[in-house]
Amino acid sequence: MKTLVVDMMGSDNGSPATVEGVQLFLKRHPEAKIIAIGKIEELKALQNSCELIDARDIVPMEAGAMEVMRLKNSSMMVAINTFLDRKADGLVGAGSTGAFLSASTLKLKLIEGVERAALMSPFPTAIKGKKVTILDIGANNENTPSQLVQFAKMGRIYSNKVFKIENPKVYLLSNGAEDKKGSPEVKEANHLLRDINFPGFVGNIEARDALDGNADVIVTGGFAGNVFLKGTEGVASLMNSLIKKAFKRNLASKLGYLLAKKGFVEMKETMDYKTTGGAMLLGVNGVVVKAHGSSDGFSFSYALEVAYKMAEAEVIKLIGEGLKTHE
Amino acid sequence: MKTLVVDMMGSDNGSPATVEGVQLFLKRHPEAKIIAIGKIEELKALQNSCELIDARDIVPMEAGAMEVMRLKNSSMMVAINTFLDRKADGLVGAGSTGAFLSASTLKLKLIEGVERAALMSPFPTAIKGKKVTILDIGANNENTPSQLVQFAKMGRIYSNKVFKIENPKVYLLSNGAEDKKGSPEVKEANHLLRDINFPGFVGNIEARDALDGNADVIVTGGFAGNVFLKGTEGVASLMNSLIKKAFKRNLASKLGYLLAKKGFVEMKETMDYKTTGGAMLLGVNGVVVKAHGSSDGFSFSYALEVAYKMAEAEVIKLIGEGLKTHE
Repeated sequence: MKTLVVDMMGSDNGSPATVEGVQLFLKRHPEAKIIAIGKIEELKALQNSCELIDARDIVPMEAGAMEVMRLKNSSMMVAINTFLDRKADGLVGAGSTGAFLSASTLKLKLIEGVERAALMSPFPTAIKGKKVTILDIGANNENTPSQLVQFAKMGRIYSNKVFKIENPKVYLLSNGAEDKKGSPEVKEANHLLRDINFPGFVGNIEARDALDGNADVIVTGGFAGNVFLKGTEGVASLMNSLIKKAFKRNLASKLGYLLAKKGFVEMKETMDYKTTGGAMLLGVNGVVVKAHGSSDGFSFSYALEVAYKMAEAEVIKLIGEGLKTHE
Repeated sequence: MKTLVVDMMGSDNGSPATVEGVQLFLKRHPEAKIIAIGKIEELKALQNSCELIDARDIVPMEAGAMEVMRLKNSSMMVAINTFLDRKADGLVGAGSTGAFLSASTLKLKLIEGVERAALMSPFPTAIKGKKVTILDIGANNENTPSQLVQFAKMGRIYSNKVFKIENPKVYLLSNGAEDKKGSPEVKEANHLLRDINFPGFVGNIEARDALDGNADVIVTGGFAGNVFLKGTEGVASLMNSLIKKAFKRNLASKLGYLLAKKGFVEMKETMDYKTTGGAMLLGVNGVVVKAHGSSDGFSFSYALEVAYKMAEAEVIKLIGEGLKTHE
């Protein structure tokens, strides 16, 4: 039986979305224990299924690392402290990314041998049902080559243990597929990975090919990773609005939608980030999942799902061991 | 009357595509003079409308900077040397990006005051007909803050003179909209642009918002810019194949396509990179346009169009003057 601590506040859609998310999750996992933190009067629907802890402050979206540490009564800090005090198995929140990541890192501490934590998210690919593990998508502003090698190790363990891919194919995100291409950090990381004969390391990959379904793990520094994440989100959203517009054009096109609908629903499912639930912070001493700020109940329930799976797979312990054996 | 020198070889689709491109361009601009370089027997269709110069070697796609400089009889090097000898107004090619950029930079030299050339491309946005000027999308592996400031100056001049935007809104691509967000280089570039009160500088922009039509110029280092360019291309191509699949599903969906077709054709036009023709190398002493390697005739004709427009707008002279006045 695993215990998840959940910050119920700070989502753009407020506590109704997170409450619905917890309910949906508990339907799938009635055996799980949830400790829900937030304004207790907003969490009444959970009083019979969860342990509730009252916390009345909400961390503002723009809060920095130091600011959040001072907000001791915020739902975020109470959640983090509860996670530690109760030795829980996972921590989930939808509040300010920067604050959540830095406070979790400061309080939970990094796994021995990890220099920097990385934010990881699975992305949809052209191959149905297949996701690719990409990290760091934004926890860091800059990364050294040796940090990129650590990201490769963590990503490989995740892909292997959570996605059950036996020999994950690992790539470095670069501006060309050849080994000699890349920023100075990427070139050196490529060199280091070749040197240690990193298991499954194929080489560099261009952003154009990242989602074609060939790669299992893609390693990048946090700055370029964030540009990749948000650039692809931006184009997907631009194209989705163009598709809507195309179908809404006139009566004929609306009828056209009805006739072609099934395929477009399937397309939406393929591209949907909601079933990935959120991004995981890999490298800290504990399972930490950042749900999308704009999570609805369905999406939030999958953030809990991801945390639960990571806890069951003992990803944190495995990362600790993996970092030792490959050094 | 402007003269363009065109490397007719090295496109993925061979000389038939580039020949068609030149023909299409000359229909729109019968006043232009074209010097076409390549295997002369493949350029016969142009013998009455262009000056032809024979060059029999083709630069291999993977050729590096030094290698191409030794390939003196290649169509690429003959084109670059002809451009210089004849004091032509523009140079266009579809061959190996790395080789074309480095050889052009070495032979044409940088404009006084420019430390690094940048590859620039206009991207489609959510606002119909509006494009955003983004640079550097891949000429460099790393850039200093002062180079980013120079890119801002060059991008602003291009947007102003070629796209005729009176007061271009200039942004820095970053992992957050706040001034304090970014890689160390981006943070420092933000600081420098604020310090000199750079005209039209708004601040940082996230990749998610880059194509929403608000920005006129977006400045980025070449590594992150390339990840943005190729990441967005990759997702657009993934979604296009999903759209095709959705419509090809069955008889009903095919009928649906016929009914909704008009809107999707319009969407294709919005997203189409073909009318942008290619990427411009800004910062070298001359108009240099790199056409897409996969150019068809239509797309290649727009690469020539872009070079012609840049020559007419005297962009190179204006960049030289602009870099002096803002220093």
